[in-house]
Amino acid sequence: MQFQSSEDAMRQALTLAALGIGRVEPNPAVGAVIVDDNLQLLGQGYHEEFGGPHAEAGALAEAGAYAKGATLYVTLEPCAHHGKTPPCADAIIQAGLQRVVIAMQDPFPKVDGRGIDLLKKAGIAVEVGLLENEARRLTAPFRKLTETGLPYVHAKWAMTLDGRIATASGDSKWITSEESRVRGHRLRGRMDAILVGCGTVLADDPLLTARVGAPVRKATRIVFDSHAKIPLDSQLVTTAKDTPVLVIASARADRAKVDQLRQKEVEVLQLASDPSENRAAAVQNVLEELGRRRMTNVLVEGGGQLLGSFFDAEQVDEAHVFMGPRIIGSADARSPVCGEGRRWIADAAEFELLSHERIGDDVYLKYVSRPGSDFE
Amino acid sequence: MQFQSSEDAMRQALTLAALGIGRVEPNPAVGAVIVDDNLQLLGQGYHEEFGGPHAEAGALAEAGAYAKGATLYVTLEPCAHHGKTPPCADAIIQAGLQRVVIAMQDPFPKVDGRGIDLLKKAGIAVEVGLLENEARRLTAPFRKLTETGLPYVHAKWAMTLDGRIATASGDSKWITSEESRVRGHRLRGRMDAILVGCGTVLADDPLLTARVGAPVRKATRIVFDSHAKIPLDSQLVTTAKDTPVLVIASARADRAKVDQLRQKEVEVLQLASDPSENRAAAVQNVLEELGRRRMTNVLVEGGGQLLGSFFDAEQVDEAHVFMGPRIIGSADARSPVCGEGRRWIADAAEFELLSHERIGDDVYLKYVSRPGSDFE
Repeated sequence: MQFQSSEDAMRQALTLAALGIGRVEPNPAVGAVIVDDNLQLLGQGYHEEFGGPHAEAGALAEAGAYAKGATLYVTLEPCAHHGKTPPCADAIIQAGLQRVVIAMQDPFPKVDGRGIDLLKKAGIAVEVGLLENEARRLTAPFRKLTETGLPYVHAKWAMTLDGRIATASGDSKWITSEESRVRGHRLRGRMDAILVGCGTVLADDPLLTARVGAPVRKATRIVFDSHAKIPLDSQLVTTAKDTPVLVIASARADRAKVDQLRQKEVEVLQLASDPSENRAAAVQNVLEELGRRRMTNVLVEGGGQLLGSFFDAEQVDEAHVFMGPRIIGSADARSPVCGEGRRWIADAAEFELLSHERIGDDVYLKYVSRPGSDFE
Repeated sequence: MQFQSSEDAMRQALTLAALGIGRVEPNPAVGAVIVDDNLQLLGQGYHEEFGGPHAEAGALAEAGAYAKGATLYVTLEPCAHHGKTPPCADAIIQAGLQRVVIAMQDPFPKVDGRGIDLLKKAGIAVEVGLLENEARRLTAPFRKLTETGLPYVHAKWAMTLDGRIATASGDSKWITSEESRVRGHRLRGRMDAILVGCGTVLADDPLLTARVGAPVRKATRIVFDSHAKIPLDSQLVTTAKDTPVLVIASARADRAKVDQLRQKEVEVLQLASDPSENRAAAVQNVLEELGRRRMTNVLVEGGGQLLGSFFDAEQVDEAHVFMGPRIIGSADARSPVCGEGRRWIADAAEFELLSHERIGDDVYLKYVSRPGSDFE
């Protein structure tokens, strides 16, 4: 395989990196390719799973002796510290590479330029910034967790083409096709947590698991439930032994009910401030807690009140909208995002359209928060 | 130019036909190509404007003497009657064509198979049905008007990604980009009428004209306004001399106000039943009236109440949704479709996704009503 340009080689590294999404967190997804002077591929690799070898190691192993004098394209600065694996910068130097092209510097405090310094000191030509935007996009969840201590927040909903998530009577089965719903399950499968409001649990008794082939990771199911109203016989509680459930309640929630939930192996986190009274504080406190647990990607699924609280708190980094080809109508049908909202369009939260995809007669739209939030 | 297949040739005829949309109504858009035995192009044409030559005439003129023994691909059955131009079937026979491939039979009562019969009687081989679905889509507005006497109804709105057309305070400037709004104006430019509710006039004082290069036709601006509340100094009323305005009021609307409007050259149509009381009947009555005026395409732009009435009456044939990358939030922000609505998803009106297109960070989604309505 021969690349047409440096950009081509880096794009291949990015494509490889993306294969690790969902498996490597809280590490960043990274990909690497090694090429000769004619951009002929000598070796490639990516970080496949948390704890496993880094991308550079795979590419170096494949290239073997050919790595000498070659060029490495890597989506993130090679590490300079002993973590679960030895430093990649050392391995690159030992292999005798002549040039290293890096898409972006690693913001992780133990690296953050040290990898680049090590390479330069060894006489290797280092370039930084090729396809940097793409690399930043790829590592946005890792960067947010590293830089702010908070997980990267995805919001997801399915709505009709008139913007409703349920009829006035609460019916929402189904707004989108089975194929779209499978996509929703796949999204769950790479999350560390799925967040819903108590209303959603009471209305739908959802399982909130990723019911697709083999989910990449098992998400903790989190319910915002000030008064600990979640029924003991709900699907969430009865499956808590197998798949973790975390209930976010206020300090004033009924003690007996909290004990009953804990006996069922549900974790109950009681916030000092009542989440139903100070929603912004609750969102912040919960995200801080999830960050401490090194959760990298979390998915808020609804209902409108919970999604509204996250948008009000400006804590949504990515929105996944599935739009079904139906009209519900009526002023009383349910909208996807409630909360305080904005009074003027000029103040409305702005997003960037990342992708749009047709799924049968549905459309799957992905948005990322615009700068302001830096995790675009 | 040589086509690869019969389908290719018909597709070219369809592409040509589409160039006439907006200019030919209440006629159907039609395209035609003439090819030799090797599918080499000999002549092509389309119906360019109402009253002008038919597609077949253009193609025959281009082919000249080469038409003898050739094959004609035409998107609609050739006419058999003297209308504004002589019958195309006769011209085809005289030109000596050997074979005619027709995408769909013409439902227009004066044709409706007679063109096909004429050709067959003259010994020409006739095939009907190649790319018929595409041809039916293209002629849907013409067919609806011909078969039901009612215009083909387009609905249009711009909404945020959380499905809102305005904030709770009524602010809607702007939800989409200028580029999307230009597309909205272009859509207006091929309509016979633009319909809005009185609330929209009172809130936004819109002009409802097609402010793009050279609009193809000038739409009548229609306001559903039971009590004739439209202000005499509104942009609509003050421009009524140049671009027609039709106010739909109840019989009980204030007589003095109605007279004042008429003095300003606003047409006032007073319905026996109060449109604000019996919305379904008003929708039906107004569409019948517009059909009598041979209006082929009309565009309902809002607000939510008027769009809701049209969806409730199952009179929306096509929906144009422009989605901007913003979140408004709050339970009180405005939704695009109000009215009675549906209590269960299973009863919700179903549409088919016709196309989806990215316009900057906006998305333009086009839907057509699913069968049930036959004008899919």
